[in-house]
Amino acid sequence: MRGEFDLIRRFFETATPAREDVLLGVGDDCALLAPAPGRVLAVSSDTLVCGRHFHPDVDPESLGHKALAVNLSDLAAMGAEPAWVSLCLTLPEADEAWLASFMRGFSRLAVAHGVALIGGDTTCGPLSVSITVHGHVEPDRALRRDAARPGDAVYVTGTLGDAGLALRLRAAGEAASAEASLMARLDRPEPRVRTGRALAGLVRCAIDISDGLGADLGHICARSGVGAELDGAALPLSPAVRARVERDADWMLPLASGDDYELLVCAPPSCEAALEQAGRDCGTPLTRIGRIVAGAGVRMHLPDGNIIEEAALGHEHFSD
Amino acid sequence: MRGEFDLIRRFFETATPAREDVLLGVGDDCALLAPAPGRVLAVSSDTLVCGRHFHPDVDPESLGHKALAVNLSDLAAMGAEPAWVSLCLTLPEADEAWLASFMRGFSRLAVAHGVALIGGDTTCGPLSVSITVHGHVEPDRALRRDAARPGDAVYVTGTLGDAGLALRLRAAGEAASAEASLMARLDRPEPRVRTGRALAGLVRCAIDISDGLGADLGHICARSGVGAELDGAALPLSPAVRARVERDADWMLPLASGDDYELLVCAPPSCEAALEQAGRDCGTPLTRIGRIVAGAGVRMHLPDGNIIEEAALGHEHFSD
Repeated sequence: MRGEFDLIRRFFETATPAREDVLLGVGDDCALLAPAPGRVLAVSSDTLVCGRHFHPDVDPESLGHKALAVNLSDLAAMGAEPAWVSLCLTLPEADEAWLASFMRGFSRLAVAHGVALIGGDTTCGPLSVSITVHGHVEPDRALRRDAARPGDAVYVTGTLGDAGLALRLRAAGEAASAEASLMARLDRPEPRVRTGRALAGLVRCAIDISDGLGADLGHICARSGVGAELDGAALPLSPAVRARVERDADWMLPLASGDDYELLVCAPPSCEAALEQAGRDCGTPLTRIGRIVAGAGVRMHLPDGNIIEEAALGHEHFSD
Repeated sequence: MRGEFDLIRRFFETATPAREDVLLGVGDDCALLAPAPGRVLAVSSDTLVCGRHFHPDVDPESLGHKALAVNLSDLAAMGAEPAWVSLCLTLPEADEAWLASFMRGFSRLAVAHGVALIGGDTTCGPLSVSITVHGHVEPDRALRRDAARPGDAVYVTGTLGDAGLALRLRAAGEAASAEASLMARLDRPEPRVRTGRALAGLVRCAIDISDGLGADLGHICARSGVGAELDGAALPLSPAVRARVERDADWMLPLASGDDYELLVCAPPSCEAALEQAGRDCGTPLTRIGRIVAGAGVRMHLPDGNIIEEAALGHEHFSD
């Protein structure tokens, strides 16, 4: 079995693009980085734990992609441009084939977004991945959770509930017969980095949907001191999710399942034309799904006249 | 059981000092940070896994201290001034007493070094702690592993092997009768941040001793393309470690046991007076223990005339 340092050297040093602002990369006590002048640093960390966030027999290449994607999604939600990433991997054994596959998925996404791997740690233990990403954003353009105001419209990129449906199909042993594009929404989410950059300066408030639409809009409401009304009929749904919702009246699928990694945006209605243009420019349309109101909490109005309250939505890691 | 967000709010938001360069802290998709003008960013990550880096019944307050300390030690080894920390905690259950104790240890050290907690993640799973620290250093003053040159003298702060001896005593059930100060060297190491800052600009090459003196000096030699000769008789030892070495001729204790978190420094002999002064100023003496030579690898000369080669030293996480 090879040592930790060999593993790191072989897979990490050439895994991601070189950047001029990385003065010293993997291999010293710290990386040395030159922050972009005139911008502030956006930093986020996320951990994926085997058995909680992914299945033990996960395809390692997909896991490598997803572990980085969920972190880049946080940069997207801030309107930041990705720059650097630290990767802490805990592995039950030094399985080189597994690690090579994981790094293929990780590297491809890192290259696509111009992100350099600057360091991390490799340890032996129960499988988990903990990543910290760094990006740059103009100080007055960052998209925040606390900037929603009554009267704002609520928008979302892409479609909702696809990852949740893919998860159910896999749990039911039906993944093989599902559309590959649907399973990819769970396994290889595409972080909305380009859209986030286009929105920075255009609007002030956004979050990425990782816990579910209701829960994440709830975070915006709590931080902004406002409430929100959502129109279920307006939710953008893929054909597969729409069929489920219509068959089973299962609104929790698009409203409460996590892992969508779409952007949720609050902005004055006067921004609508600019948002539509940004959606076209980035190839990811934004759909208006509701509005911010005075008060607190999120309410979802369903086509049949029923209302779902926020308390029924979303997940928390220690309560599900 | 409370939700993840309550846990984070209660323990994280007030855990560490406020800093003016933290524009937006815990609670949004990313933290927003203002890097120090004229300096570069030093970033390091370390993971501690239960059963590998600490015992399941570890005192959580000590673990909170140590998890941050080992990361600050990497900043010290770079000559950087600590600024910000991200904390990814994976916990088997939402044990508030455990978390409160962990955060006490973490917070006390963060306050001592003026480090602000800027974010992280809390997930449910096998106990582990993954931390990323950020610090600032003048671009031409960073201490690197690749800057040792033949003719340099090799210095080390503090004493060697104390943590290794403490680990043995605990494994043998003899921790209760050991000196508290010896056990503290294992459980609550003090990162040599002040010394690292004093050395930045004075010397060019340093590393912190986490894997063991021989292994970490080996990292310097490999990165610098040099070899090293160490004088066993010159190693700074506490009375407890010296007694073991003299009783059992157990040189592996100071040479190969990890977790010392002292700084290992390579510098031309002309720096010696300045290094002695820095050691006095920081209250942590530096001891000259060997020299850098042309060639490769580390050799330890013992008082009895025997030589230990590098291959016998240090540990790697996947091979021990």
